[in-house]
Amino acid sequence: MKNLRQRTALLLEGNGEYRQIGHIIDIFLITLIMVNVIAIVLESVVTLAHHYKQAFLILEIGSVSIFAVEYLLRFWSCVDRVEYKSLECSDFKRRLKYLISPLAIIDLLAILPTLLMMFITFDLRFLRVFRLLRIFKLTRYSRAMQLLLQSFREESGSLIAAFFIMAVVLILASCGIYLIEHDVQPDKFGSIPAAMWWAMATLTTVGYGDVVPVTPLGRIFGGVITLLSMGMVAIPTGLLASSFSEQLRKRRVLFCDAVHECLHDGKLDDDQLEHLEHLRCKLGLSKQEANKAIKSQLSARTKNLYCRHCGERQD
Amino acid sequence: MKNLRQRTALLLEGNGEYRQIGHIIDIFLITLIMVNVIAIVLESVVTLAHHYKQAFLILEIGSVSIFAVEYLLRFWSCVDRVEYKSLECSDFKRRLKYLISPLAIIDLLAILPTLLMMFITFDLRFLRVFRLLRIFKLTRYSRAMQLLLQSFREESGSLIAAFFIMAVVLILASCGIYLIEHDVQPDKFGSIPAAMWWAMATLTTVGYGDVVPVTPLGRIFGGVITLLSMGMVAIPTGLLASSFSEQLRKRRVLFCDAVHECLHDGKLDDDQLEHLEHLRCKLGLSKQEANKAIKSQLSARTKNLYCRHCGERQD
Amino acid sequence: MKNLRQRTALLLEGNGEYRQIGHIIDIFLITLIMVNVIAIVLESVVTLAHHYKQAFLILEIGSVSIFAVEYLLRFWSCVDRVEYKSLECSDFKRRLKYLISPLAIIDLLAILPTLLMMFITFDLRFLRVFRLLRIFKLTRYSRAMQLLLQSFREESGSLIAAFFIMAVVLILASCGIYLIEHDVQPDKFGSIPAAMWWAMATLTTVGYGDVVPVTPLGRIFGGVITLLSMGMVAIPTGLLASSFSEQLRKRRVLFCDAVHECLHDGKLDDDQLEHLEHLRCKLGLSKQEANKAIKSQLSARTKNLYCRHCGERQD
Amino acid sequence: MKNLRQRTALLLEGNGEYRQIGHIIDIFLITLIMVNVIAIVLESVVTLAHHYKQAFLILEIGSVSIFAVEYLLRFWSCVDRVEYKSLECSDFKRRLKYLISPLAIIDLLAILPTLLMMFITFDLRFLRVFRLLRIFKLTRYSRAMQLLLQSFREESGSLIAAFFIMAVVLILASCGIYLIEHDVQPDKFGSIPAAMWWAMATLTTVGYGDVVPVTPLGRIFGGVITLLSMGMVAIPTGLLASSFSEQLRKRRVLFCDAVHECLHDGKLDDDQLEHLEHLRCKLGLSKQEANKAIKSQLSARTKNLYCRHCGERQD
Repeated sequence: MKNLRQRTALLLEGNGEYRQIGHIIDIFLITLIMVNVIAIVLESVVTLAHHYKQAFLILEIGSVSIFAVEYLLRFWSCVDRVEYKSLECSDFKRRLKYLISPLAIIDLLAILPTLLMMFITFDLRFLRVFRLLRIFKLTRYSRAMQLLLQSFREESGSLIAAFFIMAVVLILASCGIYLIEHDVQPDKFGSIPAAMWWAMATLTTVGYGDVVPVTPLGRIFGGVITLLSMGMVAIPTGLLASSFSEQLRKRRVLFCDAVHECLHDGKLDDDQLEHLEHLRCKLGLSKQEANKAIKSQLSARTKNLYCRHCGERQD
Repeated sequence: MKNLRQRTALLLEGNGEYRQIGHIIDIFLITLIMVNVIAIVLESVVTLAHHYKQAFLILEIGSVSIFAVEYLLRFWSCVDRVEYKSLECSDFKRRLKYLISPLAIIDLLAILPTLLMMFITFDLRFLRVFRLLRIFKLTRYSRAMQLLLQSFREESGSLIAAFFIMAVVLILASCGIYLIEHDVQPDKFGSIPAAMWWAMATLTTVGYGDVVPVTPLGRIFGGVITLLSMGMVAIPTGLLASSFSEQLRKRRVLFCDAVHECLHDGKLDDDQLEHLEHLRCKLGLSKQEANKAIKSQLSARTKNLYCRHCGERQD
Repeated sequence: MKNLRQRTALLLEGNGEYRQIGHIIDIFLITLIMVNVIAIVLESVVTLAHHYKQAFLILEIGSVSIFAVEYLLRFWSCVDRVEYKSLECSDFKRRLKYLISPLAIIDLLAILPTLLMMFITFDLRFLRVFRLLRIFKLTRYSRAMQLLLQSFREESGSLIAAFFIMAVVLILASCGIYLIEHDVQPDKFGSIPAAMWWAMATLTTVGYGDVVPVTPLGRIFGGVITLLSMGMVAIPTGLLASSFSEQLRKRRVLFCDAVHECLHDGKLDDDQLEHLEHLRCKLGLSKQEANKAIKSQLSARTKNLYCRHCGERQD
Repeated sequence: MKNLRQRTALLLEGNGEYRQIGHIIDIFLITLIMVNVIAIVLESVVTLAHHYKQAFLILEIGSVSIFAVEYLLRFWSCVDRVEYKSLECSDFKRRLKYLISPLAIIDLLAILPTLLMMFITFDLRFLRVFRLLRIFKLTRYSRAMQLLLQSFREESGSLIAAFFIMAVVLILASCGIYLIEHDVQPDKFGSIPAAMWWAMATLTTVGYGDVVPVTPLGRIFGGVITLLSMGMVAIPTGLLASSFSEQLRKRRVLFCDAVHECLHDGKLDDDQLEHLEHLRCKLGLSKQEANKAIKSQLSARTKNLYCRHCGERQD
């Protein structure tokens, strides 16, 4: 028999017998976060802020209350969560560990600005905008985004190198255009940092056009930089493209390995099938692909199972 | 012996003995749709609309009549189509099922605005533009586009995640530039939604340049956002690139599997060759590639299965 | 013993014993074409055209004479070229076949405008610019470009589909912005074709900024279109990226097949090594990669060469 | 026992027992280079240059002294470095070889402008900017960047071909827009080189918008060029994406080969493990991937080599 705290933990994680109701709570919270973000964005429009002052206030107080209750419930029940239960330490340490986990900090940031605004009164607008940080609460719910972020993390070395190349080209481009256009347009290319605005807009192919070289030499130099911009854009794109391909391959291999392991005794029972289905969802593979992997592993087993010479099983 | 309805169904699908004449009908309809779209676009130019009023009207009436006839014929003969024939339900249900299929709805949308314009008379121009929806009738004819759209569908999870990351960065960027430039350019960055126009143009590297930050801090922040824009553009591109690669691989594997299956008895008869040729077209593989796959599967079977000298199986 | 025509053919193709001298002629012609293109571009600057009139004229006459001689020599010797020699038809037909080959047409286009200018006198400037077409003469010399163009050709189906999607989005975008901004900016969004200029610049992320929506609704719609632009740019990029990967793989496979075939008798003689080296260059593989392929095929042979059961060679 | 010069070489290379202290020196130098670059960029702002004249001067003198000492130490100790030790030539030749190595030239360029400024007095500002070249000193420290640059080098053939296609399209685009818009906007499209500025900004999707076609024909032509720009951007991106994928694959294969070789005697000793770990770092593979490769190679050896029951070899 589970106590209230354990049930709360299961409910908030959406595991076990509370999967359905946990799913509903998730959807409610996701909707609330989105409504909040839209409201905060619209509140910055002066006329809207004036007309619907009451509505915005009620929404804000209501949302923050719900988020606060969610935060407290999560904090209270965190010691019963699967990943903290297995830690061998006191409940206090577990709670502390939870408090400094990224998701808990995001949850805190979602309610902190409003709490501060209630007690401190000096600069309201500045804090108001920080309420937008509650958009990060959505990260909890998107698996595909976590996979995307993982790609970024795995390619971080290459991306930093790409960023470094970008920085070098950026500095040399600003320096070059500063030397060439400095005297003709002192208001636009008056210093290297000022010239960087042009170089940045050009190298990323944004190209605002508010600052452009006008001398023939500046335009030739600018033309070379626009050509380089294609390379600059190509590097991160290429890195991510190859990283995504790599991840797809890795996930397929991971799934095949899992199938291989499950097939150790030559057949798949229901538990193993459910486990594989769960893994399939987690890795984002299509059903068709998964079936193919299982089938090919099965046929591979029946073919290579016995020694060609003595007929004995090989494992 | 086939009756008229069955023949109409075959004609409109371009299958069986009517492949050639069905192909001609297809080309006629594609041309008609394109001419229609070009006419509607040109009709929005006031001078042209004035000069060639008669011609546009005749083209419109003629086209809509043809499309209406096509729609009625398709509706009438749909119960004899291959995919609906195999459904175990009454003809009425089949017709209903056809009516709510995407292609039937597109066909209806192609004629509806003009039909409405004949009976309702209040806002003509608005409806006139909706006639452009008949461009979607072209989806029926492009296999490569269907394959492209399939890529989008398969990557939909990741693309939505990418879109979500984009939305978060967009909101934070607009919010940041709003805080920084709000006081200096109240007409351009007067609210977060207004600042989003700049953020959107920057993060997608469109960079109109009609709204740009002017303060040093705003330009530093803007520079950071232009850098982020490269990442924003790289994510969908990378996802699609890896998805297209994956699809190419999958199609190749599918074809090899089909060849493997056909070769179960050690040889290919004419039926199987036609089946493989059909599959090759459907999967969009080159002839060279297909021949290679067949050859390698053939040689794998004949070469490695038995020792040529002692007749023992080799695997 | 070869006659003069055969030697000319070998010289112009750079084959056989004339490889070295043919290479020098190639470099001379490439340089001449480039100098020509630069000269034609610079000649459009009025002051330069005035000052260096004499020099431009001499260069033009000299170049055209050389190109004309080259064209005549190629035409004269074409019947002795390897690819035309093997055709079973009369010399006249071979010459005709050569005349309508793309490279011969390009060679003709390179000299035609100047020849016309000598005899016809009405609009000189128009023809002058067409002399730039001689830049296409360079296609003869670049293998990497031919490989690139092959990628385009192989993906042509998908690229046309991408282009078609682009066209549909373009028409819907122009139509939408025309409906929204037509009344506010009649000079910029006065008709759908006029609105296409904005839609084209936005969907390709060029973003000139000379025409932008100004109404709130127009900016929301414009924002959606900028988001779509990322997808539009991602499709061709993704297609080409996956196509290039595919080509790399195919070339590797082609090379491995060639190695496999050469190793039929279990060893590589000098002729085969030269043949493989030639193929390696043609396919643009690195030396390291080629060596690896050869080594792995060699070891595969020695391992699987004999039947496990009777010890006899397997092929 | 090592002498001072040998120790200096080890220290500067960060090898052997000086790995830790060498690492600290590296970090100090990297920081110094970055501070220098930032200072030079900020010095171009007139007000800052005026206010902090003293600080900039001290930083410059201090940095150049340190870089000069580093340069001299490297030059002195270069004959004891691993890669020069193995050369069979006199110390003088080794030093000469070091002097003309790219990294030594970069080190020299980092101190040369300031040294020149001390002795020559005519144009200070010009030389001052060249001090920025010391940013290239950072190349020594980034392995990921060296891998990126290798990708560029390996794809150089294709990239040059892409660049050539770009040049052809660029010239034809400028020529076309020159013909069309020359008479209407003589100040912007007065000559082909002037028209190139627009063509360059359009084909790279930068799209400044300072120069745009205004005639209907010019806009239609411009629209076609914007469409081509997507292809232009797609080529280098696709090339790099496929090149990065290829490199990932090659590195994986290289590592697997190394594991295979190490496992020749059926087990891994400590030396081999360290060797593999070193290789893993050099190739930038993840630990997880490396372990997988080792495990699969191990199991391939032990599982399939002999039948567990009858002891017969299986391949």
